[in-house]
Amino acid sequence: MFRHVKQYQYHAKPEKADPIFAKQMQELIGGQWGEMSVMIGYLFQGWNCRGPAKYKDMLMDTATEEIGHVEMLATMVARLLETSPVEAEEAANGASDGGIVASVLGGGDTQSAIINAAMNPQHAVVSGMGATPRDSMGNPWNTGYIVASGNLLADMRFNVTAESQGRLQVARLYQLTEDPGVRDMFSFLLARDTMHQNQWLAAIEELEADGLEDTPVPSNFPQEREMSGVAYQFMNFSEGEESAEGRWANGPSKDGKGKFEYVASPEALAPEFGELSEVDPRLYGTPKQPKSPASS
Amino acid sequence: MFRHVKQYQYHAKPEKADPIFAKQMQELIGGQWGEMSVMIGYLFQGWNCRGPAKYKDMLMDTATEEIGHVEMLATMVARLLETSPVEAEEAANGASDGGIVASVLGGGDTQSAIINAAMNPQHAVVSGMGATPRDSMGNPWNTGYIVASGNLLADMRFNVTAESQGRLQVARLYQLTEDPGVRDMFSFLLARDTMHQNQWLAAIEELEADGLEDTPVPSNFPQEREMSGVAYQFMNFSEGEESAEGRWANGPSKDGKGKFEYVASPEALAPEFGELSEVDPRLYGTPKQPKSPASS
Amino acid sequence: MFRHVKQYQYHAKPEKADPIFAKQMQELIGGQWGEMSVMIGYLFQGWNCRGPAKYKDMLMDTATEEIGHVEMLATMVARLLETSPVEAEEAANGASDGGIVASVLGGGDTQSAIINAAMNPQHAVVSGMGATPRDSMGNPWNTGYIVASGNLLADMRFNVTAESQGRLQVARLYQLTEDPGVRDMFSFLLARDTMHQNQWLAAIEELEADGLEDTPVPSNFPQEREMSGVAYQFMNFSEGEESAEGRWANGPSKDGKGKFEYVASPEALAPEFGELSEVDPRLYGTPKQPKSPASS
Amino acid sequence: MFRHVKQYQYHAKPEKADPIFAKQMQELIGGQWGEMSVMIGYLFQGWNCRGPAKYKDMLMDTATEEIGHVEMLATMVARLLETSPVEAEEAANGASDGGIVASVLGGGDTQSAIINAAMNPQHAVVSGMGATPRDSMGNPWNTGYIVASGNLLADMRFNVTAESQGRLQVARLYQLTEDPGVRDMFSFLLARDTMHQNQWLAAIEELEADGLEDTPVPSNFPQEREMSGVAYQFMNFSEGEESAEGRWANGPSKDGKGKFEYVASPEALAPEFGELSEVDPRLYGTPKQPKSPASS
Amino acid sequence: MFRHVKQYQYHAKPEKADPIFAKQMQELIGGQWGEMSVMIGYLFQGWNCRGPAKYKDMLMDTATEEIGHVEMLATMVARLLETSPVEAEEAANGASDGGIVASVLGGGDTQSAIINAAMNPQHAVVSGMGATPRDSMGNPWNTGYIVASGNLLADMRFNVTAESQGRLQVARLYQLTEDPGVRDMFSFLLARDTMHQNQWLAAIEELEADGLEDTPVPSNFPQEREMSGVAYQFMNFSEGEESAEGRWANGPSKDGKGKFEYVASPEALAPEFGELSEVDPRLYGTPKQPKSPASS
Amino acid sequence: MFRHVKQYQYHAKPEKADPIFAKQMQELIGGQWGEMSVMIGYLFQGWNCRGPAKYKDMLMDTATEEIGHVEMLATMVARLLETSPVEAEEAANGASDGGIVASVLGGGDTQSAIINAAMNPQHAVVSGMGATPRDSMGNPWNTGYIVASGNLLADMRFNVTAESQGRLQVARLYQLTEDPGVRDMFSFLLARDTMHQNQWLAAIEELEADGLEDTPVPSNFPQEREMSGVAYQFMNFSEGEESAEGRWANGPSKDGKGKFEYVASPEALAPEFGELSEVDPRLYGTPKQPKSPASS
Repeated sequence: MFRHVKQYQYHAKPEKADPIFAKQMQELIGGQWGEMSVMIGYLFQGWNCRGPAKYKDMLMDTATEEIGHVEMLATMVARLLETSPVEAEEAANGASDGGIVASVLGGGDTQSAIINAAMNPQHAVVSGMGATPRDSMGNPWNTGYIVASGNLLADMRFNVTAESQGRLQVARLYQLTEDPGVRDMFSFLLARDTMHQNQWLAAIEELEADGLEDTPVPSNFPQEREMSGVAYQFMNFSEGEESAEGRWANGPSKDGKGKFEYVASPEALAPEFGELSEVDPRLYGTPKQPKSPASS
Repeated sequence: MFRHVKQYQYHAKPEKADPIFAKQMQELIGGQWGEMSVMIGYLFQGWNCRGPAKYKDMLMDTATEEIGHVEMLATMVARLLETSPVEAEEAANGASDGGIVASVLGGGDTQSAIINAAMNPQHAVVSGMGATPRDSMGNPWNTGYIVASGNLLADMRFNVTAESQGRLQVARLYQLTEDPGVRDMFSFLLARDTMHQNQWLAAIEELEADGLEDTPVPSNFPQEREMSGVAYQFMNFSEGEESAEGRWANGPSKDGKGKFEYVASPEALAPEFGELSEVDPRLYGTPKQPKSPASS
Repeated sequence: MFRHVKQYQYHAKPEKADPIFAKQMQELIGGQWGEMSVMIGYLFQGWNCRGPAKYKDMLMDTATEEIGHVEMLATMVARLLETSPVEAEEAANGASDGGIVASVLGGGDTQSAIINAAMNPQHAVVSGMGATPRDSMGNPWNTGYIVASGNLLADMRFNVTAESQGRLQVARLYQLTEDPGVRDMFSFLLARDTMHQNQWLAAIEELEADGLEDTPVPSNFPQEREMSGVAYQFMNFSEGEESAEGRWANGPSKDGKGKFEYVASPEALAPEFGELSEVDPRLYGTPKQPKSPASS
Repeated sequence: MFRHVKQYQYHAKPEKADPIFAKQMQELIGGQWGEMSVMIGYLFQGWNCRGPAKYKDMLMDTATEEIGHVEMLATMVARLLETSPVEAEEAANGASDGGIVASVLGGGDTQSAIINAAMNPQHAVVSGMGATPRDSMGNPWNTGYIVASGNLLADMRFNVTAESQGRLQVARLYQLTEDPGVRDMFSFLLARDTMHQNQWLAAIEELEADGLEDTPVPSNFPQEREMSGVAYQFMNFSEGEESAEGRWANGPSKDGKGKFEYVASPEALAPEFGELSEVDPRLYGTPKQPKSPASS
Repeated sequence: MFRHVKQYQYHAKPEKADPIFAKQMQELIGGQWGEMSVMIGYLFQGWNCRGPAKYKDMLMDTATEEIGHVEMLATMVARLLETSPVEAEEAANGASDGGIVASVLGGGDTQSAIINAAMNPQHAVVSGMGATPRDSMGNPWNTGYIVASGNLLADMRFNVTAESQGRLQVARLYQLTEDPGVRDMFSFLLARDTMHQNQWLAAIEELEADGLEDTPVPSNFPQEREMSGVAYQFMNFSEGEESAEGRWANGPSKDGKGKFEYVASPEALAPEFGELSEVDPRLYGTPKQPKSPASS
Repeated sequence: MFRHVKQYQYHAKPEKADPIFAKQMQELIGGQWGEMSVMIGYLFQGWNCRGPAKYKDMLMDTATEEIGHVEMLATMVARLLETSPVEAEEAANGASDGGIVASVLGGGDTQSAIINAAMNPQHAVVSGMGATPRDSMGNPWNTGYIVASGNLLADMRFNVTAESQGRLQVARLYQLTEDPGVRDMFSFLLARDTMHQNQWLAAIEELEADGLEDTPVPSNFPQEREMSGVAYQFMNFSEGEESAEGRWANGPSKDGKGKFEYVASPEALAPEFGELSEVDPRLYGTPKQPKSPASS
């Protein structure tokens, strides 16, 4: 069960409206690596967790924090889309055609024309100057972006990825704006993403220290059932051998169970490219030979 | 540019047809973590790579290998769906109603009824007993599953995840079949996933050793611009303090730049839940007060 | 069975081409609340209807009208994208680089540059200056937007929503253009949406008057099977009690069967946050305790 | 900002595992009308709200409650998928092949065969016996299901719909199970949906009483700009006149601003089906006459 | 503008209910190649058509026919899902638990168990025994399946494909049922698909005869601008030369403008695999050399 | 199994960066008719092929070539997005704010403002100036675009379509750029699309010559089972008889098995618009008459 506290975890107001940046910033809300992905991803990982209580509690802690991050970002987008109350009132009285909404409504200068042409039309037509749960190109967020597999090491590797891609995107958007209010809020998000990258890396260390999971995931699948001969071979399928210079081609494997080997010319392990069997005539696929009609 | 070699990297034939397992196994082809995801993901990471040649070459090596893995799996699904040539020929002559296709076509016993009812209808109606580029529930594979960000550490963390989730799914499917041919092929895939988990972990080590990237990603964003006070705090947003027991709440941070701190009762850092500005009347959102009609 | 009449239900020509508005206007064709949604939604509601004939006939009446609305809008978009015949002919002769298509093809002034940069690329590359069945951000229309549940009250509530969101979007787009031809056509659509909002509200009144359905939907589920204690309680899960001031917290419930009650501090009705059972080792989820390998 | 309370709002345990019902029940989590839709829909409506505080607070109250409903349902699905701890332990020791997981793993009796064939494969392969954020046919939940338009009457009509479709689906699933634990939890959800249908209907009453919005939405669009002649006409586009018998064809309109009129043979209001202009040859559409090649 | 005639173009009733076949048959309604695709595809091709009137009229003729085909199929699915009126009445009185719905509701025999487990849950829970606008695996139909490019030859080639895949799927489903009513309706659809394949092939002939379009599409792109040396070469990128035996490798090209040539060992035409330029440090991609932090 | 050759099949460098064209050109990579569609489509057709070896080999040849086309296009997009190394270095030193990335980062002139506003935000934020596997409007590529039916004639008709739509789109994009490097690469792609249109048309000729398949597809479905009376009738469902003038309405049918007939006023072949049966009360659909509550 959840409770809502009527304060933002952190917030700052933009200095001025900027619908183009509002469009770009949507990536952080409803993009593949936006805050909705970590919010919903961590919630389902927590709810489905059958492991030790400290992991489940930790997942619920951070999942709950992330709901508040979507809240912060949605509010920021709404503010980047709004005119000041004064402008709005004047516009209502027909006394003004200034401001962002006026631009959207067809103001005449070049900047207005650019904003009108390039802004996200759904910010005007669908959400009425509110944030949408979509990315910067308008794609609806969907749960094909997340995972909750029940295997905590597999999932925490995903979580490190999500926080890495997420922090990378905030850093790039930081370069796309000079608004001090937006940058202020981003400085908070960047710091939390720093924490969360560290947190999931620490959780991975802990899972291994607790003896619960290890590389290769899943580690309690009996490894003698895999084909050991190819389990530590790097295979060179692309012309050139620059790839021979990397750590992945030399020395002990990272799981400590093998030694990397470089295969410069990988050969097929299956001697022939056997044909598929004949098609069933009742399914009307193309056979190897002409056939008389199927009956049924 | 690519060339196709007319052999499978590894292959084995199923002992007998099994349309239900064929449905389940589709997860490994067109699922979120199926082989299409690593194939297309690694290709785009390689094509977009602006880093050192050894990384680009290595990405192209493994991407190219993965095309061959989709090939192996598609062939296996096609074989799990097929009748023997003998049955097919008899069926064409009306002499037999046995076999899997016959079951699909309405054979009378309980097993046939179950197969007919529960198999993937698209295996009969759409692909004519071939594999489809979809998952076990029939969702089309899509590129919302993958990433190529230009930041190799962020992407290689994704790759470790993909190989972990992928190996986990092969291991689970291994338990869902007893067919020795299928298990034989899985033993190969499990081993390659073992290698690939090790490979991406080694590549992460190398990126850090080369001084190209580090935690937190992106590491060359000037860290003084983030709000340092919250960069190493674990925040307890879920009732109970089991999460205080973990590595993420104690000791030096994993990036070596801070010290984890446990915040038992995280407070909002924004004093008030400020209201959004008034809506522009020309967008017909609900205002705080009744308004007279907008004109334009 | 349907017949096509070779006239538009209503139509007007735009005064001049406007590819940016054509992009924005796509929301009315292939958006979540565009005319395709009401067309396909009402068709399936009509086809699946098992209720009295007057409802089925009425659904088919309005569904059929809506096909004509998509026709009107698609034609309008095609015209907003076209050059005059003169320009086109001159362009073919190399005698002119004016007009909208010329802009798309790289004309030099600022307005052309804006149009070229911001227009929907698919209007040029995919549809060749025709309408597409997509929204203003290019998302394909899909049937996840609609419903035909077999319960007419549930569905007609959806229909009121669709006509409300639809009319809201036309009104907003009305503000984004000053073209008299476009506004003329919008004046027709706005009036029909007025009718359709009224129509579905009247249909709801009729369903209740006919004794076929009522609040709460579905009304013939035996209400004694629901937990009556919480059926009319408003629960305050967000800090602050502004929500206590609303009609939903005071007085008789809208279905006339209860009395609204305000619960200022809702308590959990489940005493403990019970743990999930242990994971099956053969599925390789993370267990509470280290385990030896599963065998199979 | 949000906090998580470590109790379920309401919960009950299923009497026994039932993977088929777990598959069907996913509709209530990640379906078009599942609890994720009301959770995310109400959150965005609340965050984007620019209207009076009582509405925003109320939206946040119920949005927050709904997060807890997803929690309850996800836990129920996880339990419907699990074996008892005893079975799991025995299975690990090879001492048992009973239970649901065993069925999935290929137990021999007919019931096991049916469960293995028909269960959601992703419950075994992807989530490891946890809930997924998808519907009963495995479609990922996406934000194309929801709306937050900034117009509260338009949105609250959506909310009434969502609670109606949602309660209808719970009632239908109630008929598909006889498990007393599941039915117990459903009795809670049915009651909350009763409340929420009443709540949104009351909120609609309040919006009208407050003078903030009315039919037709948006009511502050100047109605003289719509084509009044067709604003209250019911048009009979489907053969037969059963539709003339309904409330929508007779009497005053529901908004009190007009009178319904039945148009038995609606005529086109546009005299001719004008042709589109000639295609620009540089876009290679099919022209009315053969053309010589375009150059550029 | 359209009108609805209250008769089916053709119809037949199923002999008995069959929810499993209803699930499979959904492919013909909302599948990639189902009737919704030809209905919506032909409508948009007709609406966007800028070519001669006979093509536009013909497109509208067949588009309008296809709306009626969706109608027929939706009705058939609804009937395959329904109990007889007698059963329904008895069930309402508690006097019977027979029939299909009873099976869904948990009747005890094996056939009922199979139907309950394997039927499309959305037929019970979402549509209440009506057809859904989705495919046999429950994927929503979407407009990514169709095209209206403005080039009639390109589009009519798509239309031939659609009618070929469509007739193939009807033929396969014909084999999956023995119900004489269903087969009767399929005999009608098969015949119309025969006509439509012939129709689009005839339209292709006509477009070429009218001098409007030809191979290669688009034929009025000045062919001297393409690299003529590779315009008629077959390139052998897969080991083995079986492909040398086909018509595509020998004789005059189909457009009559060249001669097929077989290239047994295709060489790259670009001498080197040039590197991408250095990444901009402000976008935090991985560079070729370690860099000091970017500032901004 | 595949191998990667470290050369482009053909390549050319753009004369200068152009992020707007990079956005538009994405249609050729990840659009419905982009190169990913032919790459993945032909791979699955080849892998699933049960017909003669020459077809399977030919499919693998061209599928493998297409992987290299995606490679060429992805590289071109990456180059259209990049600054020169000099600019990048200066930017890192704070010595320059020129170049494309600088524009994205907020340079002041009008052209920079347009580029910043209208470019694909994901090129900056998600892929860091690399290509994405998406179309020009940012939609993820998905396998709902392709088909591999097992029937080679049905599929090769699809392939002709894909190459026609693809060449049409390249020709249109050719008009949208004047960059000689881009046009150079397009001249190669146009020529290969010319070949591939010819190739699939030749393959269709060969399939018919080999006696493997013919019109109507599938030709070995016993044609006496279709309703012959309507198999060659053109039905005029749209007002006006312009469609009577076409080849599809006159002369022998294209399959040589019938004669086209024009039906000016098509009549329904089903005498009545029969009602659906009564709804089962336990599913809570709307009945024809009020009912007492269902129990269960």
